[in-house]
Amino acid sequence: MTQSPSNTASMYKMIGNHTFDQFINIATQFHNYPAPGLLIGGYMVEEAKLHIPEGTLYEALSETSWCLPDAIQMLTPCTIGNGWLRIMHFGLFALSLYDKYTGKGVRVWLDLDKIPQASEIMTWLLKRKPKGDQDSDRLRKEIGMFGSDIMSVRTITLQDELLTKRRKGIIARCPVCGEAYPSKHGPICRSCQGESPYVQASSQKASAAFPR
Amino acid sequence: MTQSPSNTASMYKMIGNHTFDQFINIATQFHNYPAPGLLIGGYMVEEAKLHIPEGTLYEALSETSWCLPDAIQMLTPCTIGNGWLRIMHFGLFALSLYDKYTGKGVRVWLDLDKIPQASEIMTWLLKRKPKGDQDSDRLRKEIGMFGSDIMSVRTITLQDELLTKRRKGIIARCPVCGEAYPSKHGPICRSCQGESPYVQASSQKASAAFPR
Repeated sequence: MTQSPSNTASMYKMIGNHTFDQFINIATQFHNYPAPGLLIGGYMVEEAKLHIPEGTLYEALSETSWCLPDAIQMLTPCTIGNGWLRIMHFGLFALSLYDKYTGKGVRVWLDLDKIPQASEIMTWLLKRKPKGDQDSDRLRKEIGMFGSDIMSVRTITLQDELLTKRRKGIIARCPVCGEAYPSKHGPICRSCQGESPYVQASSQKASAAFPR
Repeated sequence: MTQSPSNTASMYKMIGNHTFDQFINIATQFHNYPAPGLLIGGYMVEEAKLHIPEGTLYEALSETSWCLPDAIQMLTPCTIGNGWLRIMHFGLFALSLYDKYTGKGVRVWLDLDKIPQASEIMTWLLKRKPKGDQDSDRLRKEIGMFGSDIMSVRTITLQDELLTKRRKGIIARCPVCGEAYPSKHGPICRSCQGESPYVQASSQKASAAFPR
């Protein structure tokens, strides 16, 4: 492991079947920019996949909402919309893949003890400098050269209560907004219960609907 | 609008630049199967985009975690990992796109008053029959034929407190697990505070780490 990465593309480690440059391209397409956390996340996801037996139906858990969920969505069948990806807001750069029935799998995390102290990765991870002062070119090169060398892996078992399949339950029509909602939320939907994210939701509804 | 969709592919409405069949293919790739909610979501996202002025930097909000977030991630620059997609767990089949600075935008929702009572879409949405008894072929055809006809749109303004940019803040090393975490979470990370999703997290750590 060196702290002075060269420009040679072949010095960059593969992310699964993708070259580092290929992954940068698909990361840019999906995430809109090749964020360092997403590039590192690519190596993390592929590292985790190595430890999951072929043919296992697995789900994923990201311990941060930053970047990592997108690496999971790009490189596994697990997405936030199909319910196979769960996000916990710990702000930890760690993820796990686990058998959806047994909960057994692996956790991969960025290991502070494996990241060279003087590296730009350490500066980025610990935010030792404002983003504008970080050397993004050097950071990217280090990510491609170190690959999974800066991670650790251990086996995990998910807690039983997290293995239950999500269910919508009975669907009703909210008597306030008139939309379909899970009746287990109460007599009216959560948005009408006061959780609406919009300003003056109810008065706007009538006045500003677009004619069709 | 008819309730007896034919087999003719050209009767299906476009989802933005995609034919219905093309969208089914990319939905299958990303989400692993072309779920009805994802196909309807495709039409919803494209309908919302029509009302956002060209060049607007927008963010997205999904009022359900089911399917719809994936339609947003597939058809907009907004993803869960880049922070431009927010999910509220209302179980409402609705989404909004809004100017990230002003919070002004549109909300699109599946409108129960526009969905024909006898349609398979209504059966699916209200879960009038168990999934196995639903006519998935007819359901898909209806989705492609109705397109955005079963939705409504209104203008919205996001509440100010939801427009603040997410920030990690200062990063520290957790004295328990040794990982980097946002110090605003407390003296130790949330996982070590007891929120870990894993069984016996701390004892497993030493015993079951993979040698590298």
